[in-house]
Amino acid sequence: MKTRIGILGYGNLGRGVECAVRQNEDMELAAVFTRRDPGKVAILTDTAGVYPVEALADWRQRIDVLVLCGGSATDLPEQTPEYARMFNVIDSFDTHANIPEHFARVDAAAREGGHVAIISVGWDPGMFSLNRLYADAVLPEGADYTFWGKGVSQGHSDALRRIAGVRDARQYTIPVERALEEVRTGRNPKLSAREKHTRECFVVLEEGADAARIEEEIKTMPNYFAEYDTTVHVISEEELLQEHSGIPHGGFVLRSGTTGWQKEHRHLIEYRLKLDSNPEFTASVLTAYARAAHRLYREGARGGRTVLDIAPAYLSPKSKEELMASLL
Amino acid sequence: MKTRIGILGYGNLGRGVECAVRQNEDMELAAVFTRRDPGKVAILTDTAGVYPVEALADWRQRIDVLVLCGGSATDLPEQTPEYARMFNVIDSFDTHANIPEHFARVDAAAREGGHVAIISVGWDPGMFSLNRLYADAVLPEGADYTFWGKGVSQGHSDALRRIAGVRDARQYTIPVERALEEVRTGRNPKLSAREKHTRECFVVLEEGADAARIEEEIKTMPNYFAEYDTTVHVISEEELLQEHSGIPHGGFVLRSGTTGWQKEHRHLIEYRLKLDSNPEFTASVLTAYARAAHRLYREGARGGRTVLDIAPAYLSPKSKEELMASLL
Repeated sequence: MKTRIGILGYGNLGRGVECAVRQNEDMELAAVFTRRDPGKVAILTDTAGVYPVEALADWRQRIDVLVLCGGSATDLPEQTPEYARMFNVIDSFDTHANIPEHFARVDAAAREGGHVAIISVGWDPGMFSLNRLYADAVLPEGADYTFWGKGVSQGHSDALRRIAGVRDARQYTIPVERALEEVRTGRNPKLSAREKHTRECFVVLEEGADAARIEEEIKTMPNYFAEYDTTVHVISEEELLQEHSGIPHGGFVLRSGTTGWQKEHRHLIEYRLKLDSNPEFTASVLTAYARAAHRLYREGARGGRTVLDIAPAYLSPKSKEELMASLL
Repeated sequence: MKTRIGILGYGNLGRGVECAVRQNEDMELAAVFTRRDPGKVAILTDTAGVYPVEALADWRQRIDVLVLCGGSATDLPEQTPEYARMFNVIDSFDTHANIPEHFARVDAAAREGGHVAIISVGWDPGMFSLNRLYADAVLPEGADYTFWGKGVSQGHSDALRRIAGVRDARQYTIPVERALEEVRTGRNPKLSAREKHTRECFVVLEEGADAARIEEEIKTMPNYFAEYDTTVHVISEEELLQEHSGIPHGGFVLRSGTTGWQKEHRHLIEYRLKLDSNPEFTASVLTAYARAAHRLYREGARGGRTVLDIAPAYLSPKSKEELMASLL
């Protein structure tokens, strides 16, 4: 019996979940739900249909896990509690500061509805969180570091697009190799924002826009660019489409710590992701945790969870015996 | 109430657990047990004593978790089932091929005795296994690679010492940088043993030993060296002590895989350990899982576990609320 997946929201992330489901033989796509006109949403899977979000309540018996593919700003704070009453759900809520509040609301709703809800699944929060936790627990005396990139930051790209005279833009966050190397030495450096990351901007200008004024405006924008070494490249719309249409991302979680009676030994734990497609990788993590949610539910678990609460074996389609024999 | 740790076996690993316990404020060392004369075993912790292994049964009420620090060849196959009847136990059983059988025996004993027993804890098996599992589950279409080193292989060092004319020796396993780079490109190369690792040997000879014959014997030794590019350095006993008395190790777990409807996007997951002290790092992992064992036991869990079965949050001294607010 396959795990029947529903997808709510068919943007890059929803399409990524659709692709990931096809890569997992123990899963199948049941349906995609959208707030748009379903007739105008073409999906890739020919065995599943597209339905309006209002139809979701009718699918309770036909979906094992609903994967919520909306955004953290406005969609998920509403959707995850709402649908956790009806379905086992997974979301990728990534506004770090609001996670405790979001969790509390989702947990209450999932308990009320008798379902499992796993929030903040992806790579940060998600795989990076797991690595921070494992490394912290194993090396209690040390320091840890998260670097992001090289990758496209949606928030920073949006900030560029809001500047008068900018038609389109793409911003890459780039970890500073020298800072990474310093962390790897085990000296536990204190690093400022500027020392850890640089920001590279590719902007397409409106006709007649003042390039010098725009570059100045970018480089002095507080919170987004002023605290970093920022470079600005003015390019054509054609070049932006050809060279910068991908959504790569990734980064590093490092922890360096000491052991021994005199703290005489140093250790470095480094986890790295290098992703061609940020949304597809996030979707792949969501899909693995959808498997976990379904299993937990069948075992009788109810309520909210994060990736930190879930034993790794639940993510794998392999049996415990297979895992022990082949992978442990 | 601190978790009271017992240590059975006071070699490098046992001493490492003693050091790790001191780094964790929620733990304390209750006692060390040895097969040697306890009067001749000096430990570092002045608040704990050393006792003969025969006294262990009297400590059932004074130890929450017993960490078994013997070897996988002969100690742990006997000790882990025996003591899982009396205590919550952790071991670092690392004979991969025998893990299923060892698990079955330990699981039965732990259930019989009403305890939790976590086997095969360390870094491989252990942290590397976790990373293989997470990466496999997230990128089901791909290939994974484990590289070891640079580090001292005890088994290969022992093999060198068994050669007639060799007084002492140290063997380093070294991952081939070119192979690592090829894996990182995402081309999923097929790599032979020789392509993945080189072996570097430092040997001290008995007086009058034939260096050329010994080098030949090393380089042609099947299973250990013949399948690798092996270099042999004859050095003095003094140099061996000065330059090669540490026990560094580490390695890499990589998985490269594809996502997308046409598998058009590549992703790389890389986990790396760089360890000054193999036994102390292993001990630090054992100690974090001792915390997990105690918690699981207090929650009512019984029986055998591996690292794959344990939710990450159990390893951390932090509460779920703290973890969610600070680390997720």
